[in-house]
Amino acid sequence: MRTIFAVLMLTVFVSFSAAQPQQLNLMPMPASVQMKTGQLVIDASFSVGVGGRSDARLQHVVELFLDSLRRQTGMPPLDMKVTDAAQARLVVHGERANKAAQELGEDESYALDVSPGGAKLDAATPLGIMRGLQTFLQLVQTTPDGFAVPALAIQDKPRFPWRGLMIDVGRHFIPLDVVKRNLDGMAAVKLNVFHWHLSDNQGFRVESKKFPKLQRMGSDGLYYTQDEVRDLIAYAWDRGIRVVPEFDMPGHSTAWFVGYPELASGPGPYQIERKWGIFDPAMDPTQERTYRFLDGFVGEMAKLFPDQYFHIGGDEVNGKQWDTNPNIQTFMRAHGLKNNQDLQAYFNTRVQKIVSKHGKTMVGWDEILRPELPKDIVVQSWRGQDSLAAAAKQGYRGLLSFGYYIDLMWPAARHYAVEPLSGAAANLSPEEKQRILGGEACMWSEYVSPENIDSRIWPRTAAIAERLWSAQDVTDVNSMYQRLQKISQWLDWLGLTHNSSYEAMLRRIAGSSDISALRTFADVVEPVKDYTREEIAAVEATSLSPLNRVIDAARPESATARRFANLVDALLAGRADPEAKPEIKAWLTRWRDNQMSLQPLENQSFLLKEIIPVSQDLSAVANTGLQALDYFDRGERAPEAWAAQEFALLEQAQKPKAQLLLMATPPVQKLVEASSGKKAPPPQK
Amino acid sequence: MRTIFAVLMLTVFVSFSAAQPQQLNLMPMPASVQMKTGQLVIDASFSVGVGGRSDARLQHVVELFLDSLRRQTGMPPLDMKVTDAAQARLVVHGERANKAAQELGEDESYALDVSPGGAKLDAATPLGIMRGLQTFLQLVQTTPDGFAVPALAIQDKPRFPWRGLMIDVGRHFIPLDVVKRNLDGMAAVKLNVFHWHLSDNQGFRVESKKFPKLQRMGSDGLYYTQDEVRDLIAYAWDRGIRVVPEFDMPGHSTAWFVGYPELASGPGPYQIERKWGIFDPAMDPTQERTYRFLDGFVGEMAKLFPDQYFHIGGDEVNGKQWDTNPNIQTFMRAHGLKNNQDLQAYFNTRVQKIVSKHGKTMVGWDEILRPELPKDIVVQSWRGQDSLAAAAKQGYRGLLSFGYYIDLMWPAARHYAVEPLSGAAANLSPEEKQRILGGEACMWSEYVSPENIDSRIWPRTAAIAERLWSAQDVTDVNSMYQRLQKISQWLDWLGLTHNSSYEAMLRRIAGSSDISALRTFADVVEPVKDYTREEIAAVEATSLSPLNRVIDAARPESATARRFANLVDALLAGRADPEAKPEIKAWLTRWRDNQMSLQPLENQSFLLKEIIPVSQDLSAVANTGLQALDYFDRGERAPEAWAAQEFALLEQAQKPKAQLLLMATPPVQKLVEASSGKKAPPPQK
Repeated sequence: MRTIFAVLMLTVFVSFSAAQPQQLNLMPMPASVQMKTGQLVIDASFSVGVGGRSDARLQHVVELFLDSLRRQTGMPPLDMKVTDAAQARLVVHGERANKAAQELGEDESYALDVSPGGAKLDAATPLGIMRGLQTFLQLVQTTPDGFAVPALAIQDKPRFPWRGLMIDVGRHFIPLDVVKRNLDGMAAVKLNVFHWHLSDNQGFRVESKKFPKLQRMGSDGLYYTQDEVRDLIAYAWDRGIRVVPEFDMPGHSTAWFVGYPELASGPGPYQIERKWGIFDPAMDPTQERTYRFLDGFVGEMAKLFPDQYFHIGGDEVNGKQWDTNPNIQTFMRAHGLKNNQDLQAYFNTRVQKIVSKHGKTMVGWDEILRPELPKDIVVQSWRGQDSLAAAAKQGYRGLLSFGYYIDLMWPAARHYAVEPLSGAAANLSPEEKQRILGGEACMWSEYVSPENIDSRIWPRTAAIAERLWSAQDVTDVNSMYQRLQKISQWLDWLGLTHNSSYEAMLRRIAGSSDISALRTFADVVEPVKDYTREEIAAVEATSLSPLNRVIDAARPESATARRFANLVDALLAGRADPEAKPEIKAWLTRWRDNQMSLQPLENQSFLLKEIIPVSQDLSAVANTGLQALDYFDRGERAPEAWAAQEFALLEQAQKPKAQLLLMATPPVQKLVEASSGKKAPPPQK
Repeated sequence: MRTIFAVLMLTVFVSFSAAQPQQLNLMPMPASVQMKTGQLVIDASFSVGVGGRSDARLQHVVELFLDSLRRQTGMPPLDMKVTDAAQARLVVHGERANKAAQELGEDESYALDVSPGGAKLDAATPLGIMRGLQTFLQLVQTTPDGFAVPALAIQDKPRFPWRGLMIDVGRHFIPLDVVKRNLDGMAAVKLNVFHWHLSDNQGFRVESKKFPKLQRMGSDGLYYTQDEVRDLIAYAWDRGIRVVPEFDMPGHSTAWFVGYPELASGPGPYQIERKWGIFDPAMDPTQERTYRFLDGFVGEMAKLFPDQYFHIGGDEVNGKQWDTNPNIQTFMRAHGLKNNQDLQAYFNTRVQKIVSKHGKTMVGWDEILRPELPKDIVVQSWRGQDSLAAAAKQGYRGLLSFGYYIDLMWPAARHYAVEPLSGAAANLSPEEKQRILGGEACMWSEYVSPENIDSRIWPRTAAIAERLWSAQDVTDVNSMYQRLQKISQWLDWLGLTHNSSYEAMLRRIAGSSDISALRTFADVVEPVKDYTREEIAAVEATSLSPLNRVIDAARPESATARRFANLVDALLAGRADPEAKPEIKAWLTRWRDNQMSLQPLENQSFLLKEIIPVSQDLSAVANTGLQALDYFDRGERAPEAWAAQEFALLEQAQKPKAQLLLMATPPVQKLVEASSGKKAPPPQK
């Protein structure tokens, strides 16, 4: 009786928006968290037992969990065993097995109850167990009394059933081990679909035994064997991740035509494309041999990839080869196809039948959506929620990728704010809303290599994962960033290199082991956003361009700049703590003086030269900020002439140089505006 | 004619002891380097061609080289091709193939000639090509004009033919991928023997198909399959590294007896040993079944491992099981074996015949050396050069490992100073000297895990590699350290984690991403040396002990402390530059104040608690140093009473706490001595 009473007394109920759970390093935030008192210590004697139904898969899941836990805590493999459920410190209990191939919409819910004496994880399926174990790993902290998980009760389940990451391995080949560590990252933030963009103009990346010229002539030797594909699928399965292959057609397909020019709508021969962009080559939708080929190919791939869904791309056909091919024009007239959209729809209808014949459900980008297609297809939208809503109204299921293009170098907060059920989608009926399956972060790979891809995916993708898993009202950006920073370092345990490769790249750029000045600089710049990199490139980038410049090392989002901007905002809003102003000054002083350290290195490395003007800007901008603070300190209003001059300087500094954005500039502009009482003029084109 | 003249004018001949080659990031230092003028730029168009004899192995060697070069420079896999020798920027030319299995003493010499227009690498064998390509990689620098290799001519060959690294995977299992990355490190510094210590009391690590209970019962499931062994051997072969297996017998063999207790000299049953030390169990040398087993086992392993040499261990038999087994005592009397050494010699003679029967040459530790054994065996000496010399005089070949035990946490300079041909070995005849084959760095693994093993091996093993490769008179410690620091960071490109795991471990210890104070602390401590860790342990360590403490993260040698000590030495010798004193003061101030930042973290992490007293010592020691400097600055002699008090403080601080040594203490003691004119009293026991 005393025990029960004590437990009741110690249990503190809080809603998940209360401060405490937000301070846990959890991402995505669970549906419900109740904090309790005390903690479960995790030491060498920690053990896991499987209660209820067990099978080889669940055993393996538990082993993988213990591997992760040991790595995180530095325990040897002899510690922390799997034991009988009766003795175990953590008991996992799954009710039933999952299907042989993971399916869309399988139950991923779990309940995790942690007390000082032990923990229980209950789920309907091994998938739910996996999700719960990842939560458990995130909860492990270093405490004064050892590693420990706080006592709490979590009830959790995902909001959307399709939470994906697409990696484009066509434009730059990404080796299998790099893909694998990113699957570990996905599992850690409860993403459940790996969308493998396997072919594009720049490369065809899977071995076909039926059509071996695809990889032999279309990949530069950079492709996955079928054994490797099976290995990757098994790896994903162990982590509760579906693998959806994409073979983009009828456009984005130059690499197919190198070996099989007869598939194309224009005369060959073809070469693997080295440039980036949208290109003319497209499959010939008017030839039966095209469909015979695709029947054979899709049949082969449908066997290789067990997932129910099969992505056929379908995006960005510019139609030029169709326009200039008289046979195709004749065919269109004969079949009443008014334009290229009609022709592509005809193609899609034929391909859909092939995909369906081989037992799969077709997925494609926005462009495939035409009423001719059956309602079971899935549309992946790069156009936005309104497009998604229109599809849902017509009865089609959809995925959002608009707003989740992580190659565009947006800050995490911008992706985080993209809500699948907003815009027109907010007004859908409940039944229509069900058709919005979720979304996918998209890692297009024009500017990624095995060295920097992790830093383009992580940690920002964790914010997208939270958007797709957590409740719609989990929108606190400050909380998100606080947790994101911690999760980012926690992801290091998985072998992801988003943090570690940064310094290695800076050392290469500096040609020196002393990177302090370069790091100070690189910490406060960001790559240009959207497609500006292409637009302002002095030399057109290709797949042969080295990705070893500062823009390739710089993080998509500067944590330093965010902190600095927040400090300035707080200062100007009068809500800064007393340490804010000295810290602002310290940053500005450091930036102003950094150029003195960086300038001499210019003669040391060709990779440094391009940033010297940006570093000079940083110095000047920081100097402006310090002057503005001086006016504050003296209680003077800054003279108008001074402000005008500084606004001109800031406008220049705002312009991308070396394809970099100087992120210190906007907050300094605010300082100048506040000190002078003048608004900066709108930027000149 | 003009061209030839120009080349002659531009060629500057320098000996390898001149400043310029020493400034190259080369380790080991080549036998001869001639600097020339200009450099060969390495850009995307760089290419390699094989001139002369070519085969699949050489092609693969060149591909591996290009992979490394691309990783180092950040070039995509489509850049930098293998081409015809006629067009290639680097032409490699090997005269003949190597043997199918790499042999001791094969030609590793090479000549590398780099000019602004191209480079030539000539060698007798693919092994020489491999060594030359590693030199080329080390020479690639970031310059104002791109990546480049300075124009030069190198003639190089190793001093010793056997340059090894031993890794003990018995005490702690080391996964295959960790071994592989360390083989990459070995190849980078031209080591050519991987000595794989595969069995010990704590584990038997190779699959035997003949005697499967060896791995099933003796490994905790932590062993290499035969396929994995073959994979590792192929990996080593691609890098010019021989793989010599060691199965330690008749002692160090508890793990064998778990499955096969009949091999032991005492009654079973046996359990896998969890503790460290020397234990009683030993094979029974008096039973024929022992030799039948070993015949089967060695026969199986001799087929698995292609190398000519087979290591049978033979060290540290305490003889207790033999002393207490009446049958063994009877046998000894019957065979005139006077003591356990005689009995072990009998065993070794029998085992040598088995090893020889299976076509292999036996290697063993010092203890095996007895005149009964044939002259073709190789003795690996942990006892020293005199022992080695004695063996050589008797006609035995030997390897030095005394002085190369990298688990003892010595500074690189101490290993570097260990010369195989010193002591009695210096006085050997040229023929006898030939019998000293080289040496091996030994990574005994009581305190290493996959997480920290790289930091125990690297970069210090590169200094040992230089001792074994370079000329005997390459002994400049400052040059060694300068190059070692650069090589250490260059090794990061191979995926070695000696640098990257440091911060991850500190973050775990801190339980926080802010590790600045912990890092300041950890940068200036070292693990205790030799076997002190065992001797002063509060709780006996076992194979179950987590290796996640500060001692496990701290580097064997503190670069910060070395720098600080050098600054103090220069200051006291009156040869310091003007910036030395401010830097000394800055370090001391930082250390004095660090405790204020570190103390609050004590309540955050159980792993931090033990270092708080050491951090307090650091603060006090730094304060003492600052006071000593004050006396200098005021031109006063420090009072005797003050000095006496500070000496007492320093003596306390000198004592290991948390099994750590505070490396700031000895230089501060010198400051106190110099400021007071008094010598510190000898330390009390």
